[in-house]
Amino acid sequence: MTAAADHVRLYELVLENGRSVSPYVWRIRYALAHKGIPFESVPVGFTEIPTLFGGRLRTLPVIEHGGTTMNESWDIAEYLDRAFPDRPPLFASRAEFAMARLTAEWFANAIVRPLFAIYALYTHDAARPEHRPYFRRTREERVKGRTLEAYTADRAAKLPALRAALTPLRHQLARFAYLGGDAPNYCDYVALGGFHWVASVGTLPLLAAGDEPLRDWLERGFDLYGGIGRDPRMKPLFE
Amino acid sequence: MTAAADHVRLYELVLENGRSVSPYVWRIRYALAHKGIPFESVPVGFTEIPTLFGGRLRTLPVIEHGGTTMNESWDIAEYLDRAFPDRPPLFASRAEFAMARLTAEWFANAIVRPLFAIYALYTHDAARPEHRPYFRRTREERVKGRTLEAYTADRAAKLPALRAALTPLRHQLARFAYLGGDAPNYCDYVALGGFHWVASVGTLPLLAAGDEPLRDWLERGFDLYGGIGRDPRMKPLFE
Repeated sequence: MTAAADHVRLYELVLENGRSVSPYVWRIRYALAHKGIPFESVPVGFTEIPTLFGGRLRTLPVIEHGGTTMNESWDIAEYLDRAFPDRPPLFASRAEFAMARLTAEWFANAIVRPLFAIYALYTHDAARPEHRPYFRRTREERVKGRTLEAYTADRAAKLPALRAALTPLRHQLARFAYLGGDAPNYCDYVALGGFHWVASVGTLPLLAAGDEPLRDWLERGFDLYGGIGRDPRMKPLFE
Repeated sequence: MTAAADHVRLYELVLENGRSVSPYVWRIRYALAHKGIPFESVPVGFTEIPTLFGGRLRTLPVIEHGGTTMNESWDIAEYLDRAFPDRPPLFASRAEFAMARLTAEWFANAIVRPLFAIYALYTHDAARPEHRPYFRRTREERVKGRTLEAYTADRAAKLPALRAALTPLRHQLARFAYLGGDAPNYCDYVALGGFHWVASVGTLPLLAAGDEPLRDWLERGFDLYGGIGRDPRMKPLFE
């Protein structure tokens, strides 16, 4: 393989300020860093996705590597373990892969879904102006035609329930340095991706002051791999 | 080691009909079966726990093996992997152990807690008559002094939310035969334990008719290890 064929390109959904926003893209950013794979980032706006890849791939992240172009973060994660077998594995076993997916299902249902009801309008407002009508139209379709303003009208009132729903993470992090145990694994990347989305758009602090050990884990997670999550554009997660 | 020292004794919390009820005991029943370890069951009623082990251990399951007597299901599970290293491991890695605990935290928060608000009084009614006052007193303390009757008064109305909260399991089981992937692992035993509790006490069917693939997984889970979960005393889980 030539150096060019080994080159990895990651297409990322970005906000007006250029920051990567998608929790699914963040999983792959962490996955590439976990395996020590350098990559070229290609920033993409919301409306541009259908214009790329001949309209064949409708979601980001997308990676290109050698002759392979693929989307779907789980497929990409599995591909990276296959294509880079000499690098640290994301999943040491088929059971670990399945358990990470189960964690992602809990996180999607208990955390990401309610997060959207809090941060949907903030996400709209953080997109590039020319992308906002597309974001509004597609997301308002998902919430049965309600406006983003109506959908998020009582967002501050939803914070206490969301904070309570994070209790399983707190319990786990009282026992282990990472969700995946002594070292970070894909369970951490799934959850960190959700917090990166919120930290990218702001502007209502998700968490109450204090809240160790969740805060300590977030700090460790942002510091990973040379400070992968550190960025002056991040909004505060804590009150 | 002598045969006597190798003998495993499992102290189980049982109902009036003799069936094991505790989700935590069920985890260890599955764990012992997973590893192919025969054991002697010692049935225990709710009020008897403080009278055993010199009052030192206040929760079941408890196992005795050789000179070891211990409680806390996670400690027992780890002990079984240490004490029987030639048997199939419950946790192939430290990461798998951590991920199973994370799954258990989600399950406790999203499923077991709301299950208690539905099945607390049924559990009381299924205990031996002489154990019911103890069960009532200790559990009513946990729900801030409300009676079990008041606490569960709207139990039928809570079923739809509980059924929706099981969505992560359904999504996982649409992809894998078991929560832990291609083979059952401790994530399955954690969740199956919750369903065994409900199936032990009845009497409001937890799940709507249909509901594959959840139903198919429950059937497989009850059939495991020679039908470990099969028992004519089980109440229907499905409407």
